[in-house]
Amino acid sequence: MSVSDSSRPAAEAPPLGRVAIVGAGQVGTMLGVCLRAAGPESGISEVGLMDRTPSAAEESLVRGAGDRALASLDEALEADTVVMAVPVPEIVRMLEEVGPRLRPGSFVIDTGSAKAGVAAAMRRLSREVRAIGGHPIAGTERRGPEGADPDRLRGAPFALTPVREDDEALALGRALVAAVGARPVILDPERHDRIVARSSHLPHVVAFALKAAAAPALGGGELAGSGFRGATRLAESDPVMVAGFLSANAREVRAALAELRAVLDRMEAGLEAGPEALTEVLADVVAEATPSGAEVSPS
Amino acid sequence: MSVSDSSRPAAEAPPLGRVAIVGAGQVGTMLGVCLRAAGPESGISEVGLMDRTPSAAEESLVRGAGDRALASLDEALEADTVVMAVPVPEIVRMLEEVGPRLRPGSFVIDTGSAKAGVAAAMRRLSREVRAIGGHPIAGTERRGPEGADPDRLRGAPFALTPVREDDEALALGRALVAAVGARPVILDPERHDRIVARSSHLPHVVAFALKAAAAPALGGGELAGSGFRGATRLAESDPVMVAGFLSANAREVRAALAELRAVLDRMEAGLEAGPEALTEVLADVVAEATPSGAEVSPS
Repeated sequence: MSVSDSSRPAAEAPPLGRVAIVGAGQVGTMLGVCLRAAGPESGISEVGLMDRTPSAAEESLVRGAGDRALASLDEALEADTVVMAVPVPEIVRMLEEVGPRLRPGSFVIDTGSAKAGVAAAMRRLSREVRAIGGHPIAGTERRGPEGADPDRLRGAPFALTPVREDDEALALGRALVAAVGARPVILDPERHDRIVARSSHLPHVVAFALKAAAAPALGGGELAGSGFRGATRLAESDPVMVAGFLSANAREVRAALAELRAVLDRMEAGLEAGPEALTEVLADVVAEATPSGAEVSPS
Repeated sequence: MSVSDSSRPAAEAPPLGRVAIVGAGQVGTMLGVCLRAAGPESGISEVGLMDRTPSAAEESLVRGAGDRALASLDEALEADTVVMAVPVPEIVRMLEEVGPRLRPGSFVIDTGSAKAGVAAAMRRLSREVRAIGGHPIAGTERRGPEGADPDRLRGAPFALTPVREDDEALALGRALVAAVGARPVILDPERHDRIVARSSHLPHVVAFALKAAAAPALGGGELAGSGFRGATRLAESDPVMVAGFLSANAREVRAALAELRAVLDRMEAGLEAGPEALTEVLADVVAEATPSGAEVSPS
């Protein structure tokens, strides 16, 4: 499925209304702050926050991410807009478990970085529920509410992955993306996962591997410069979150790993052949990586 | 060889005197600016700059990296202190070609990020020449004089790799490191190369590979966030410089690559086994990467 809706007139979006954010981590907090700031002008009447760790919800409220804490998932399900901002396997589980209890006419969106499994679960929801996959590409390796930097959402790409023909769900998704100041990029879940496996998931795998491979030789890190810190920054991320999206996108991540290994093989062959040959390999690699045109167009 | 000189009184350093920097790239420019700022108080009477691309030397002078341009390598060899700030294979070639013309009593130091080959070439210099390997760990991926950020040297680790018993060379190395405001880390060339293969060279290899592996799927990069840019930043580096240090440190880089592949294998096995198993692998990897003690102590 490849979605392009530029030729269609946008459906009239009903208001986002009462918003419930499930998961008061970095992403939930970031979204909550921006949705609250958007307020009634964006059709948002309230932002409620729910986290199974009450202290996280409280910390997130302190940061301005919500008007009030929601005591339970059931309370969250009463909202007009439900944002699921938890690790990907939990999103899928949540959709399967509580999906049948989503109110008819309510809007559900998630923030996971792997979309195919979420889409499959969303397709099993009642057709009365407006559902779309979401992925704000504005996160960092910093964990929890204190890691949230709402400014990062401004102008950031925010993937919307439609899961079935539903103009209203798409319009609601666009309204939410607009409310937080991000830039919608609409594409189907499979294509999203193929891209993100390379742009985000593989870099996470490599950051963890680099950090571990370096450790025995690095010792106290006296000789580690900014290059090393930059290359391993993503390995600061929450392992539960990372394992969640990697597992949910395992097929594409494995394919991306195979591609990485193939380039490493070429570089290793260049390494055997001396600096001139290796310079050529590096220059080739850079040339291949220079974009010749956008595969994904923002909408 | 493992060098620790903390128990010995430091030798009296003669002044650095007239300094000649060969190579007006990012590192040469950064050092030139700092050495000029240090000036006579640090025993520096003049900083001359030489680059085989005259426009680079001029640009570097404009940035304040030298008092004057040197017309030739021969002119540079007349200085009291010669800093070789060119790609590693060129440093080795230069030491072999013009080393015999270095004045007795003059001090020579380089800035390459692979030290064993440089050390071997320095050991062939006359014993009348004060020689030590140097590696300021303050560079970035930005190329040329315009990529130089002299502030990065302040407090940065600056590896000094002694090549033979020569207290005066070590004292001069320390004087130069102190003059630019960096922090000396003294270690033998082999140990340096083992560490830097993991802290810098492998991350460079991986950045190039990540960028190339991602390219076909990424298209115009609409979905690439700061994580991807951070993970591939080092691939912006000059391929000639990178190929130079990788080739000069090929044995250690290959070993580091094998270690990386082994961790990737573990992560891939975790990927097959599901999110809980993968979380455990990631947590193990992070725990292994947590330094248990400094292998290298600053001096």
